[in-house]
Parts: sequence; C-alpha cells; structure tokens
Amino acid sequence: MSDVPIVHTLHWFAWIARGSDAMRRSTAYIFPGVTTVSISADSSLRTDDVERLDSPNAEELRLIDAYWRAANYLSVGQIYLFDNPLLTKPLSAEHIKPRLLGHWGTTPGLNFLYAHLNRIIKRRDRSVLFVTGPGHGGPALVANTYLEGTYTELYPNVTQDTEGMKRLFKQFSFPGGIPSHVAPETPGSIHEGGELGYALSHAFGAAFDNPDLIVACVVGDGEAETGPLATSWHSNKFLNPIRDGAVLPILHLNGYKIANPTVLARISHDELDHLLRGYGYEPFYVEGNDPAKLHAMMAETLDRVMDEIQRIQQVARQNIDPTRPRWPMIVLRTPKGWTCPHEVDGVQVEDSWRSHQVPLSSLHGNADHIRLLQKWMKSYRPEELFDADGRLNVEIADLAPVGDRRMGANPHGNGGLLLKSLRMPDFRKYAVDVPSPGAVNAEATRVQGKFIRDVMRKNEFHQNFRVFSPDENASNRWGDVFDATDRGFVGEILPSDDHISPNGRVMEMLSEHQCQGWLEGYLLTGRHGFFNCYEAFIHIIDSMLNQHAKWLKVCEDIPWRRPIASLNYLLSSHVWRQDHNGFSHQDPGFIDHVVNKKSEIIRVYLPPDANCLLSVTDHCLRSRNDVNVIVAGKQSSPQWLTMDEAIKHCTAGISIWPWASNDQGAEPDVVMACCGDVPTLETLAAVELLRRYLPNLKVRVINVVNLMKLQTPSEHPLGLSDRDFDILFTTNKPIIFAFHGYPWLIHRLTYRRTNHHNLHVRGYKEEGTTTTPFDMVVLNDLDRFHLVEDVINRVPALGAKDAYVKQAVRDKLIDHKQYIAEHGEDMPEVREWVWSGKRSNDSTGN
Amino acid sequence: MSDVPIVHTLHWFAWIARGSDAMRRSTAYIFPGVTTVSISADSSLRTDDVERLDSPNAEELRLIDAYWRAANYLSVGQIYLFDNPLLTKPLSAEHIKPRLLGHWGTTPGLNFLYAHLNRIIKRRDRSVLFVTGPGHGGPALVANTYLEGTYTELYPNVTQDTEGMKRLFKQFSFPGGIPSHVAPETPGSIHEGGELGYALSHAFGAAFDNPDLIVACVVGDGEAETGPLATSWHSNKFLNPIRDGAVLPILHLNGYKIANPTVLARISHDELDHLLRGYGYEPFYVEGNDPAKLHAMMAETLDRVMDEIQRIQQVARQNIDPTRPRWPMIVLRTPKGWTCPHEVDGVQVEDSWRSHQVPLSSLHGNADHIRLLQKWMKSYRPEELFDADGRLNVEIADLAPVGDRRMGANPHGNGGLLLKSLRMPDFRKYAVDVPSPGAVNAEATRVQGKFIRDVMRKNEFHQNFRVFSPDENASNRWGDVFDATDRGFVGEILPSDDHISPNGRVMEMLSEHQCQGWLEGYLLTGRHGFFNCYEAFIHIIDSMLNQHAKWLKVCEDIPWRRPIASLNYLLSSHVWRQDHNGFSHQDPGFIDHVVNKKSEIIRVYLPPDANCLLSVTDHCLRSRNDVNVIVAGKQSSPQWLTMDEAIKHCTAGISIWPWASNDQGAEPDVVMACCGDVPTLETLAAVELLRRYLPNLKVRVINVVNLMKLQTPSEHPLGLSDRDFDILFTTNKPIIFAFHGYPWLIHRLTYRRTNHHNLHVRGYKEEGTTTTPFDMVVLNDLDRFHLVEDVINRVPALGAKDAYVKQAVRDKLIDHKQYIAEHGEDMPEVREWVWSGKRSNDSTGN
Repeated sequence: MSDVPIVHTLHWFAWIARGSDAMRRSTAYIFPGVTTVSISADSSLRTDDVERLDSPNAEELRLIDAYWRAANYLSVGQIYLFDNPLLTKPLSAEHIKPRLLGHWGTTPGLNFLYAHLNRIIKRRDRSVLFVTGPGHGGPALVANTYLEGTYTELYPNVTQDTEGMKRLFKQFSFPGGIPSHVAPETPGSIHEGGELGYALSHAFGAAFDNPDLIVACVVGDGEAETGPLATSWHSNKFLNPIRDGAVLPILHLNGYKIANPTVLARISHDELDHLLRGYGYEPFYVEGNDPAKLHAMMAETLDRVMDEIQRIQQVARQNIDPTRPRWPMIVLRTPKGWTCPHEVDGVQVEDSWRSHQVPLSSLHGNADHIRLLQKWMKSYRPEELFDADGRLNVEIADLAPVGDRRMGANPHGNGGLLLKSLRMPDFRKYAVDVPSPGAVNAEATRVQGKFIRDVMRKNEFHQNFRVFSPDENASNRWGDVFDATDRGFVGEILPSDDHISPNGRVMEMLSEHQCQGWLEGYLLTGRHGFFNCYEAFIHIIDSMLNQHAKWLKVCEDIPWRRPIASLNYLLSSHVWRQDHNGFSHQDPGFIDHVVNKKSEIIRVYLPPDANCLLSVTDHCLRSRNDVNVIVAGKQSSPQWLTMDEAIKHCTAGISIWPWASNDQGAEPDVVMACCGDVPTLETLAAVELLRRYLPNLKVRVINVVNLMKLQTPSEHPLGLSDRDFDILFTTNKPIIFAFHGYPWLIHRLTYRRTNHHNLHVRGYKEEGTTTTPFDMVVLNDLDRFHLVEDVINRVPALGAKDAYVKQAVRDKLIDHKQYIAEHGEDMPEVREWVWSGKRSNDSTGN
Repeated sequence: MSDVPIVHTLHWFAWIARGSDAMRRSTAYIFPGVTTVSISADSSLRTDDVERLDSPNAEELRLIDAYWRAANYLSVGQIYLFDNPLLTKPLSAEHIKPRLLGHWGTTPGLNFLYAHLNRIIKRRDRSVLFVTGPGHGGPALVANTYLEGTYTELYPNVTQDTEGMKRLFKQFSFPGGIPSHVAPETPGSIHEGGELGYALSHAFGAAFDNPDLIVACVVGDGEAETGPLATSWHSNKFLNPIRDGAVLPILHLNGYKIANPTVLARISHDELDHLLRGYGYEPFYVEGNDPAKLHAMMAETLDRVMDEIQRIQQVARQNIDPTRPRWPMIVLRTPKGWTCPHEVDGVQVEDSWRSHQVPLSSLHGNADHIRLLQKWMKSYRPEELFDADGRLNVEIADLAPVGDRRMGANPHGNGGLLLKSLRMPDFRKYAVDVPSPGAVNAEATRVQGKFIRDVMRKNEFHQNFRVFSPDENASNRWGDVFDATDRGFVGEILPSDDHISPNGRVMEMLSEHQCQGWLEGYLLTGRHGFFNCYEAFIHIIDSMLNQHAKWLKVCEDIPWRRPIASLNYLLSSHVWRQDHNGFSHQDPGFIDHVVNKKSEIIRVYLPPDANCLLSVTDHCLRSRNDVNVIVAGKQSSPQWLTMDEAIKHCTAGISIWPWASNDQGAEPDVVMACCGDVPTLETLAAVELLRRYLPNLKVRVINVVNLMKLQTPSEHPLGLSDRDFDILFTTNKPIIFAFHGYPWLIHRLTYRRTNHHNLHVRGYKEEGTTTTPFDMVVLNDLDRFHLVEDVINRVPALGAKDAYVKQAVRDKLIDHKQYIAEHGEDMPEVREWVWSGKRSNDSTGN
C-alpha cells in the first residue's frame, strides 16, 4: 500500500497557540466560504455590548397579528375549501371538499411562530431555517410560504390572487395535489412531517458547520415522547459554538396528541424546567391563550433569545472558546387548535384532542356546521387581510423578509443548491498489494479508514464532510481517521480520552437515531457524510431510512429540488464475525429492508476484499441522491484482487473470477457464485476441495459486488440484461450461491432469470451463538464442506467417487466440532487455509 | 352481531365511592391472586412509622466485600481461564483460553450491586428482579447466579466445586457454551444484553400489575444515550403505586462506552441532578472508588431507598391514592473496569475505555501479562473465599437469599412459570351477520375492538392483560375497549380527557419503543398483551423485534424456560388507506422483516374481513412463544364470510372461495389469488368485470389468510404440502396474485412451488401520495382494471374480444383519473361498487 503522510490534527487550543498564521487558518476553518460576510459583521460588535433592539410597538404587533390571521385563514381554507376562497359568497356545500383531510391542531401555533420569526429575521438580517417537528403542520407551512411569495415562485400556477388561492386550497390533500404534512414539496423544508422524533437531530445536523445559520426547530409535545427526540436534546454536547450555527428549540406544548394528553404538558412547571435545564438549556416560557398578550410576550422573548444566541456566539468566537454554553430555548404553551370553534355540538373542541384533525367534520348536509365554518373563517377578518383580487395587503406583506432570507427560500432548505463536490484523494493509492489471489491478508475496513482519513483531510477547508457512528468507529477499524480529526465533543475532556475535541468531525453518540438524524440533516443542507455502524444494529434506524428514501424518491420528481450527496453506510462487525457478541449481534436483514425502497435510489455493495472496498467507497462518495449500503468485514482476511482487477470488477458489479475457475474453453458443470467476504472465502475453499476431490469437474466462480446487478433492468436501473445474466450463470447448469445475508433475498432478486430454478442459495439462517469464525459458517451450513456437498448433490452423476467425497466432507465436519469443543478455536486446516492457486495469465479461456 | 352488555368501568375514585362492597372488590382489583399475603402484611404497618432497619455493621460489610470479591474472581476466571480455576498452580499459558472474548468493564459494578441487593432482599424478604441494562454484563450475572446456587440447579453439570468452576470458566464465550452477554441462558434474566436501550422499559413492563415486585434496573451510561432509554425514564408517569410494583433505576456511571466517554458522565453534577429530577425521580448518589467506603455508602443508600419505596407504597395503598410519587433512584459512579490492573504496559486501563473488553489481551507468549493476570486474580484473595474443593465459604454463601428470593430464581424471571391462560369470551358472539358475500359493510378492527374489550373485562380479576399503543388505539378503532378500561396515566387528569385514569390498562405513550419494551417486559414476566400500531411505523421497533425473536428462538432450546404468551401485533391504518397522511405513512415491509426471523416463531395473518379477524385474534391470544402479526384495515369495507366460513377459512389458512369462482367441475383458466383486505376487494371486483366481459373464462379465486401457508413445510412448520399447493394453484395455469405488501415477498415464499413460474404478483411499489382510496390502488397498479388486464395478458388467446376488453379497462382508468382530479373522490362506479354474486349452495363443484 502506498504511504500517505500522517499529520496529526491538533486540538483547538494547541492549534490556536501556533500563532498568527495558524490563527488566520483557523479563522478560515471556522468561517469558511459563503459565510464569511455576516460573521465579520457580527464580529465588529463588542462582546459586552450586544446590540439591544427595541421591542415591537403596538402597531407592529397589530400587523404581526394580521399576518398570523392571514396564515390561519389560508390554513383553514386549505383543509376545507374547494371554491369561494375569499368567502365573497355565502359558504355552501358546493364550496366544501367532499373529503376533509388534514390537521388543524398544531397549525395555529406554527403560524404564530413563523410570523414572529419573520419579524426577527427581517429586523436582524439573519439566516433562519425552519424545522417543523409536529407531524401535521402542512397547512401552516404551505400558507406561510405562499404569503411570503416563495410558493408562487416555485409553483407559478399557484398565483398570489383569488385564482391562485383557489388552487392553493383545492390542491391540499387532494388527488394530484400535495400531502397534508410538511413534505419535500414544501418550500424551505428539510424535514418530513410524517414519522415523528427526528426534528431536533435534523436541526443540529443542519447547524453543524454552518456558523451563520440559526435553525428554529419546533418540537411537538407528542413528538417529544419518542425515544429519538428524547435523546436528541443532548445534541448540544456536540455543537461547537465557534464552528457551528445555533439551534433554537421551541417546545410547543399544546397539550394533546391524537386522543391523549401529552406527558410533558402534564408534568409540573418545576419538573419541566428541571428537565430542560438538565438537558442543558435555558428555557424561556411563553404561555397563554390571549393572542394579544402572547404576541407581545413572544416578540420580547424572541428578542431576548436572539440576543442571547448572538452573545454566546460572540463570546465563543472572540475568545476562541468552544466551552458549551447554556443555549436558550423557548417553551410555547398554547391551546391545541387555537382560534377554531371552542365548542361544536356542545362538545369542547379548541384546547382539546378533538381539534387534532378537522375540528368540524361532516359538513355536507349539515347547515349548522357550514355556518360555523363560515363564522370561524370570517373571525380572521379576511377583508382586512386580502384585497378584492386575493392579494395580501402590502403593509402586512411587508412583514415578511425578502429573497433568500424568507424561510421558504433559505438555500439550506434545498441543500443541493449549496452542495460542493468533495475533493477526493486517488483511492488507488491506498491499494493493498496483492501479488497473487489470497497471497496476503488485510483488514478491509482498516484500509478503507485510511482513505476516509484523507477525504477528511482534503476537505478540511470546506468543512463539509463528517463521519457519524454510535461509538463503533474504532471497533469497525476506522481508527486512522483520528490522524486527521477528532471525535467531536463539547464538554469535559480528560487527558486519558482518545482523540476527543470540540473540533472533531467524527460524531459519536451511542444512538443510531441521533447519528442517522444528524447525518440526514447534514446531507439535506448540502454536505457529505458516512455512517459507520455495526450491521446488526443498523435496523434501529430502519424506519428513518424509510422516511429518507421516500423523501429522495419524491424529490426526484420536484424540479426545484437539487440533488444532494448520497446517504452512505458502512456496515461492519457483520453477521459472520461476532465472536464476542453472539446471536444478539447477528442480523444481515438491513439489505432486505433497503431493497424494498424505490430501486432508483438504492445501491447495495458487498466488496469481497479491501481493494474492491476502496473502489466502491470512492464511487459512493461521488454519487448523488442514492442510499449506498456497503457491507464489509473488519477482520484480517485473504485479499483476492489487484487494484486494477478490483476496479474492473466493481465497475462491472459482477464478474467471473477466471483464476478461480477451471471451465475455460468448456461448459461449466457448476457455477459457484458468491457475494460477501466470508461467503467468497468459503466458496474459494470449496473450489479447492473440489479440485482435489473431483479434478475433472468444471467449475465457474462468479463474484457479486453490486447486488442490484442480479435484478432485471425492468426492476433496477443497474440490473444485468437477461442475455448477460444467462451468459454468466448459464441457462441450465446448477448454481451454488453463497450469500452474506438471508438466502431468500437472492431468490427474490433472481426469480425472473432463466436459470433461477437451478439456483441453490446458502446464507444466514438465524443460527448462531458464541462461536469460532468457522463454526459460525458451519452452524449456518455455509461452510466449504456443505458447499462441496451441494455440488455433489446437484451436478448430474459424477461417478462412483460421489459417495466417498460426501463421506469425506461429512467426516471433516465432525472433526471440526470435536476440535473446537476441546480447543475453542478452529482446527488448523481451516484456520491456516490459504488459496493455493495462482493467478493464471490465460484466464480468458484461450 | 350479537349484543354484548356494556358496563362502563368507572374511574378509581368513583368506584371506591360505591361503598363497602365495591371496596372489597377494589381491594381484589388492586391486590389480586398470589400477591395478597405480603401486601396484607405491609398494610399492618403504620404509614408514618416505616420500619427502619439498622445499617450494616463492619462485619456485615466485610462479608459483602468478600461476596463481591468472589463474584469478581469468578468473572475474571470466565473471561480468561480454561483450567486451574483456583490458581492452585502457578498460572501458565496452557490455563488460558486461546481466544479472549468477553467484557470486564461493566462487570465489577454489576457484581457490587448484586451483592448489596442480596443483603436487602434477605433482610427485608422482598421479591427483587434484576434487569441488567449494560450490554456486556454476562460474566457478572453468571458468577452471581452460580454463587447463589441457581446456576447449578438449572445446569447440574456446573457443580459448586472445583470441577464445576472449571466448567463454568471454560463454557463462557466458548463454542458450545454460553454467550458473553446476559442472555436467555442466564438464570433470572428477562433482558438480553445485546442491543442497548430497553432495560427500563422492560423493567416497568415487569413491574406493571406486580404490586409486590421490586425491579432493580441497572442502566449503563452508554445505554443511557440511546433514544429508547432516554424516553423510558418517563415510564414513571404510567406506573400506579397501588396496583403496580416498584422500579428502582440504578444509573451506573462508569464513564466510558467502547472508545468514548459517556455524555451523562461528562455533564455537571448539577445538570445531571436537574435531568433526573426533571424525569421525576429523587436521585441518591453513591460515588467513589474506595470499595470500603462504597460498601458502607451503598448499604446505607439501599436501606434508605427501600424505606422510601415502602413508604411510598404504603401511603398510596392505605390512602388509595395513586398520585405519582417522586420515586427514588440511585446514581452509582465507579471506575470502569474497577479493580482490574490500573495500568498495563504503561497505559491506564482501569477507569478508562481500555477496560471495556479484556483489560489484558495477548497473553499467549507474554509472561508479564500472565503474571499480571495472576496478580489480578489473587488480589481477590480466593483462598479466603473458596475452600480447597472450590466451594464458597459458608459465612459468605449465607449472604445470599434462599429459594425463590434469589434473584436468579425469581419466578418473574422465567415468566412462563407464572403464566395463566386468559379467560376468553366466545369470539363467535361478535360475528358480523353476513347474509351473502359483500352484502354488508363493517369496520373490521372496530369489531375486533369489541372482542378485545371483553377479553379485558374477563381478565380484570387476574390483572394480566394490557393493550399497548403509541396513541393509535382510537385511531385504529379499538375505541370500545374504553368501555372496559381506561388509558393508564398517573398524572394530572382534566375533565375533558377521554377515558384516562391511573387504573387504565391501555398504555398509550407516543413511543413505539416504549410500547414494545413495556409489552415485552409484561410478556416475559408471564402476562398477556397486544400492540396496536399503525402499519408504517411499526418499523420503528424492527430491531427490538429482532432481539425478542432471537430470545424466543433460544428459549425453545432451554428446557427450564417455560413458554410465554405470544407477542401480538395489530397493524392497522395500513398502507392502502392513508388518506390523511400520504406517502410517509405507507410501508407494508414489517411483514418482510419478521419472516426473516426463525420460522418456528413467526406467524403473519391478513384476514380479509371482520369475521376472519375475530377468528385469528382468538387464536393469537391462545398461542405461546410466537410473534403474531395481524394486518387488518379499519375502514368500512364489504364483508365476505359468515362466521362459520371464516373459522374454516382461518383454520385452513388458505382456501378457494367457491362462491367467487366459476371453475367448478372444470379446469380453471386462471387462478386469482388475494391476500389482504384491499387486494381481496379489488380481486373480487376484477372477477365481476371478467364475468361481464369474458363470461366463458373459468376463474378460481383463492384467498390467503395465513401467509406462512405459502411456504413449503421444510421452510415453515405451517407450510402447505406441495401436493396441496399444486391442487389449489394448479401446476400450469396463470396465477394473478394481489397482495397487501411488497410483491417480492410472495415470490420469495413460493419460489419452491411447482407453478411459481406462472405467478404474477401485484402489490405495493412505493408509489403513493395523498389520494382517494381507489386512486391509491391505481397508483400501484393493483386495481381491478389492471388485474383484468393481467388476466387477458396471461391467459392464452381468448379470441377477438381481447383487444376490446383491454381498451375498455384502459378507458376506465382514464375516466377515473379525470373524475378524481375534478371531484376529489372516487368515481361512483367504484365508490358504490358491491359484489353482486350470491353465495351458491353448490359451491363444491357438484
């Protein structure tokens, strides 16, 4: 392998101490690229004299209220109306949608916050991204981005007039229209309001390396009960106030979920305050139900909070002191469904769980309810808000920021706009020298780690690459990355700690949810990253992967959504090598899970050795809008391909390994296919046994790196053509397929292929416990001896030798069991096995 | 449907107010069955005079320390030794295992806690269950259960003498032995130490309805970073101090994960204290590294904590006041790897991340390390602990409790011992009256909810059935359950709340992790339950399901583990009806996930109507050691089978529907198979179109309720024989299969079947957004028109009509798109479609 120079990245303080040149460099490090301007402006303020801006006067508050009413009016309109958007005619059944879909409950609170944040942005000229945690906030974000103009810019057909307002209303939760949640279709959004729990993780991921950005993240009190959200408050221990932006969590207590009160709304103020301080925040409370009072309180609170964020950042940045501050947050307590009819049919609706969806249902044939809806909508006094053509009155419209400062137009909300390609080292330089197949051993992920280390180094200036791992980075043998950076942690650091500093770019918290959420937020705002995880436990984020994959799928059909960097997984410490951990750590099913997602965005790679892993890793880091799953072992294993061979193999995704095959110039008697590092090893060991026992047998060895190649092109864009598949696998010979994962998956991927009825797959069968490496494959019948038996069972009569060979391999398995029961390790013939064949030069069959 | 009498279960206070007779009943309700005796004893104590027990004297502390040293000695022995268990000979390489697997880091802390809990149990005669949160605590729990004698009782070969000790050591993390984590093999355990995060949820699940039980739950500070653990602290808002037992969380701060410090160990004492109080606990701190001091502190603290638990329970129970108390908890801060060599090769190991696994590795060929290991083991002074035969000295052994009071023998740790079958109402009484197929509509899950309501009622006395749901119980239309019980919540309850009380048996927190964890804890301690969830979001607990399924699989091979009640899921609000929610709520892949688990324990049911759902539900509640997944819609839908037909259909799991078929007495031209309620509806609608367009076509309709029937008996114990499969599906006719989930699954389950090459499956394809119900199936090509087209494309030439029929169905799809774009609902011909066929009496083909 080529030598890559190793420069130890020093901890912050040591780095600063290097003097003015280093200082200059560190300034660039902190405030790279696009963000320089506004930070420089901030830096001119004195730390002890943060600019205090006046509280808004009554007229300003009146206008904010009008803006809020306009958003509320548009939200109700979206849920209910088909026509008559300005209520110029008395409301009647024909104006009302036949099916009422959508959610009002959280909407007025979101509208309230959006209006107040608009004021702050405009007044302070700050870049604010809005993350909508509550699940059902679609109407609010659509209404607000429409009011500020971004909606019409992106969807020109939805004009800012009566006709456009009618379209805005009709399209909501309507066939061919938009979903009822905040979604990829919503301008300025990086967070789907579907599955709950990831808002804060996404917000922090967005704030990392964006020192000028403030992410206002609304956390619903329903969402707050989820596990991922509960731990994501701790993200503040990983946010560096110098290098990163700010997250402003806004816990919105409206008291109810679908049919239940929420936990955080029903604990005492004292307990809640303890909890939030325990999480490390300084809570500011805005509580009540009188809009006038709340407007004044919220305006003043936001001013104080923004002052505090500014002060924190100034102190940290001027003193170059990344000590974790006590970041401010807001608790907003307002009634659920605020401003909707308080009672309907004698039952309380506002401020109860009954306002969660549509406060008024069954309108058709119910004149009273239609009258109530009209009264509700008129309570916002639309005639004061919109002119006769449906245009927002100018003095109200002026409250919104302009251009990219509008939260619906913030470029971080469409991260592809900001995406810069990574500077990439040449992956070939990290190649393992493989003089002949199996001649050397290497730890594949350790080799990969050196490459990742240099990706980290090469992009230090742009600060747009991070690695995320639930404390498994070292265990998965990416330790060399710590030559280029540290683990990021903003807290007490002890001398005995290993590569930990506030400037680290490896994010390790023992929460797969947090790692995934941070990484998604980081990618969605236009940066790059890798998730390094144990294979078994990546299932913890199955459901998050679903949501991200759905997001990507929808984005591909939205012209204004620009491509983002792919979501890259390294899954190591995989199912076949869990010597310490046993059965609980064995599950290769994440592959099955991801291949259920839309094929256009799914890629699964199982490189058989280090050089293939390098080639695949390089490809993944350059790809866009994909989900790339790489499964690779960390243990020392035989290396098979030279770098040149590896590049060809990985580019093709599937190849015959001529040096392992002996069917050149003849029809093979059997195809031995393998996918995954351990199955490849066992297949090659089986091939050697076959050469010894059955030297006349013609064996073709095929290795699969890119699992998607097995599917037909109609199922996956990378699928092998039927003709190419038939050429490789023949149309009528037995195929013995050794697979890393559950065997079904191979059947599923190949069931349309000509020769699939001759396919016999061995893989993981949920059999495993504490074992030696070889015993693990024996337990699952994936070992070399079983593979030999498979060949004998499936190749038409090989003559009288069959019975003797079967007995010989059976005896080997009994030898093995006896040996390990006594010695606790694999028998020497297995442990010390090496591929004896050489790479032949006439491998083309000539 | 038969009428079931509805008795409204009153809230606690109202109930009590009914007078002496009600009081008597309520007492039984609080303290049912087995628990009466000790509660009565407790009740004789005065509330204001809780018995204060003396602190232990120096001699007692000396013995506790000896017990701790013995456990530590045995733990180190398990990790390292092959032979020479009592170190009677100088330690040499041949005594040391060839591969060192296991984890020391958390072990001494667990041993410390176990010893102190033993004292408390013995002194107070309390029933304590030990839940080991830290992932790698296997050596500790094995050592302690060996010391107390339970290990030898369950594994007679591992005797309490030198020979047994040698076996104990050798078997640990050894082929054919036991895993390195706490596992099903570990006596007294209900919690696998594999994937982290669920310890507290399991502990609370165990404590529910066990008023006499104290669950001591050690939470590792690594585990504490996970999302599920972070939210599970809030379980105290759902624990009724009258009816339920106590959970004593012990947060063990040893400071490090695999390679990182932990978050909670690196925040200030003040922040940590705020956090734990914010979660609602009263923390007691035991911190230090001097064993002598810590023994005294821990003994005193445990006395205080146990007094406090006793006081809380007495106050609540005597005053019949379930107000949430501030439960005590313990924070134990000790060095990671405590008592192992402080330095190895000049590097700090004790009290650092380096002691996480094996503090001394590479012993073979390293005489220094071997000497260090010997010194380490001798530091526990084994000669003071064990006699020459390897027996624990009597005065030390006497510290352990006896019989079922030993934590390794607590029957709650082997819940099957305590399991009582549910009292079951006759599910046939809830039948929907179906005069002819499709003649009536019903909401299947609402009907099921009435049955569940009465299961709840019938088992009120035994208090051994609960329902768990992330706030989706009402949405999934089990609202009738609230006629029998309430939602459980121990906190502020407002008049506008809907069926909420501290006595409720429906557990709703917006955390799938919490619901799953509670339910697992409840089942593992011998009770029954149901998880009611949205289909899409059950993926959130994919990984927890993995762990539970692995637990069940391993238990089947452990003779002393008694069967427990099955883990039952209702998945509703399913992929085909997400009108409010759209794409983010659509994922039918949980089925794919579960069928990867060991087939013996997996069952998947897709009942097509309410009567089938009733039959399946009854079966699931009676089953043992299974994971039952039921997928059923909540929307009003046509009903197909009478109860009698439903019982036959569900018992068979798969049947021809003769009344929908017209191939009686002839070979079918095509088999139309369906699985799931919406696919069944579309298939029947397609059959009617075929009857109209192609009246001579012979169609056989097959419905699948039990998905596992599709597999061969070699793959699943419930699989249909090949002969039966061929009889149903023919060996050569086209099969059009309409499936609820991802189509691949059907291919995967049937790939071994004769006729699988004629199988064409339609299912969910990751295409969906806000739609009308029919448009959802159209988007995925699962609609009746596509099914008709499939038949035409696959049945050999039907004559000149083909082209006309294809054009007719194509035109229908265009009609549909135009209609919904304008009206926002399905066209009347679809919306109002009903099956026109009657049930024929000659359906047997005669």
